[in-house]
Amino acid sequence: NWFVGIDIGSTAIKAALVDGDGQLVGVHVTDSGSLFHKNAKAALQALLDGHGLQREQVSYLIATGYGRKLFKEADDSISEITANAIGAHEAGKAHGGVRTIINIGGQDSKAIQIDDQGTVVNFAMNDKCAAGTGRFLDVAAANLDIDLEQLGDYHFNGKGAPLTINSTCTVFAESEIIGLLANGHGKEEIVAGIHYSIAKRTLRLAKRVGIEDRVYFDGGPALNRGLVAALQDELQRELVVPEHPQTTTAFGAAILARAEWLAERRGV
Amino acid sequence: NWFVGIDIGSTAIKAALVDGDGQLVGVHVTDSGSLFHKNAKAALQALLDGHGLQREQVSYLIATGYGRKLFKEADDSISEITANAIGAHEAGKAHGGVRTIINIGGQDSKAIQIDDQGTVVNFAMNDKCAAGTGRFLDVAAANLDIDLEQLGDYHFNGKGAPLTINSTCTVFAESEIIGLLANGHGKEEIVAGIHYSIAKRTLRLAKRVGIEDRVYFDGGPALNRGLVAALQDELQRELVVPEHPQTTTAFGAAILARAEWLAERRGV
Ligand code: SF4
Repeated sequence: NWFVGIDIGSTAIKAALVDGDGQLVGVHVTDSGSLFHKNAKAALQALLDGHGLQREQVSYLIATGYGRKLFKEADDSISEITANAIGAHEAGKAHGGVRTIINIGGQDSKAIQIDDQGTVVNFAMNDKCAAGTGRFLDVAAANLDIDLEQLGDYHFNGKGAPLTINSTCTVFAESEIIGLLANGHGKEEIVAGIHYSIAKRTLRLAKRVGIEDRVYFDGGPALNRGLVAALQDELQRELVVPEHPQTTTAFGAAILARAEWLAERRGV
Repeated sequence: NWFVGIDIGSTAIKAALVDGDGQLVGVHVTDSGSLFHKNAKAALQALLDGHGLQREQVSYLIATGYGRKLFKEADDSISEITANAIGAHEAGKAHGGVRTIINIGGQDSKAIQIDDQGTVVNFAMNDKCAAGTGRFLDVAAANLDIDLEQLGDYHFNGKGAPLTINSTCTVFAESEIIGLLANGHGKEEIVAGIHYSIAKRTLRLAKRVGIEDRVYFDGGPALNRGLVAALQDELQRELVVPEHPQTTTAFGAAILARAEWLAERRGV
């Protein structure tokens, strides 16, 4: 049996495939674009094609994320907070269990506290302000004329200390970055400063829910090693960062798809 | 005798000239640029040249605004809150007196409550978030490919109702504006929506200090008739908008320059 979770976010669509034993078999990530529904179907197809599967072989599919209501093909849907908690709890088992989840998405950021069963105890979310989200990284990378994927390398290649970005507002930070460049500062030190700025804001968000070990960090920006380092520094502890940080929430939805299907079969 | 107030803001430098009777004689407005001090000196010179005056003929000069500390030529300096209060109180006399001041600047916004002597009773300020400041107008005008000065006309030329801009964040509003354009919405209805978005945010700021009649509206964005209309709508009252809304704070500094000079002469 096969189970799929699909996380239709504002920036990217993530799909995860889980087998009958609840093991992660594969993931697929694609841009959301403006045609959410069409792109979500294409992402599902690509995931299945990659493993030589037909849609009929998927026993249960759960959608999550911002665009989940538009995806009628799903058997069920679930909030991204719950899906993220289930995914991180499951993935965290190999690391001795996690109790705090920090998720930085393309347009939001969240801190979730879970108990040792993976149940959400408390959470805090910012989806109103671009600062502290992946959007700030996009904007900063564009200002610096750097590819998003390069930010991590720049972080570690500076000769000097990270610069302080005084503006928390992304819009005002843009002007500040341009000013720092004009004053001859290195992109490396600016990039590190940006990572610390996001890390500080994330720390404040995480403190609202309470930080308990171990802390799991996921979402696309967790691919950025520089941001991971800055966040570890601010939180003063090691983070559990999964290999595919973008797909934890989709994985959680797939895990739940399997559980719901098993429950239905048992006639619960 | 002549008195000058110079308001060195992050976006523009405003200078006001007052005569021995405390009457406003002239104003000069120029961009701040990156060389605040040099540009402030040039603005002062331009103001004086325009009235055939030499620096020595100015009895007292007070600087205010963000860059006031850098302007060593001033006889004194004062916070922009106090200068704005003095200027609005003085200018408001012709309108029966004002008790609430709303100032939207290039990178901040303020609400100030004054008593009937022009003394500051209470104030609230936002200088951390670009939303609700002139910066949002700059960004939106750029997204719409409209000159800042045209926004007022667009506001009144829509065939349909103002569109709702759901994102308060300037960064997210940018994407929303681009999406509305892509969906074929008119620039006029989008512009009106932007003005209402700023007006709603300004209303919240003003409520923090309490709104008492009459309400004076100044700062560069008060030149935008569409924004004035939206703000009047949200506040549900007429606003007192001066002819030169950018220079109220500089005028207040000049009024104070005269008062300080008179007090010194009297040996107070
Ligand atoms: S602080 Fe800046 S990034 Fe945050 S909501 Fe305001 S405009 Fe947006």
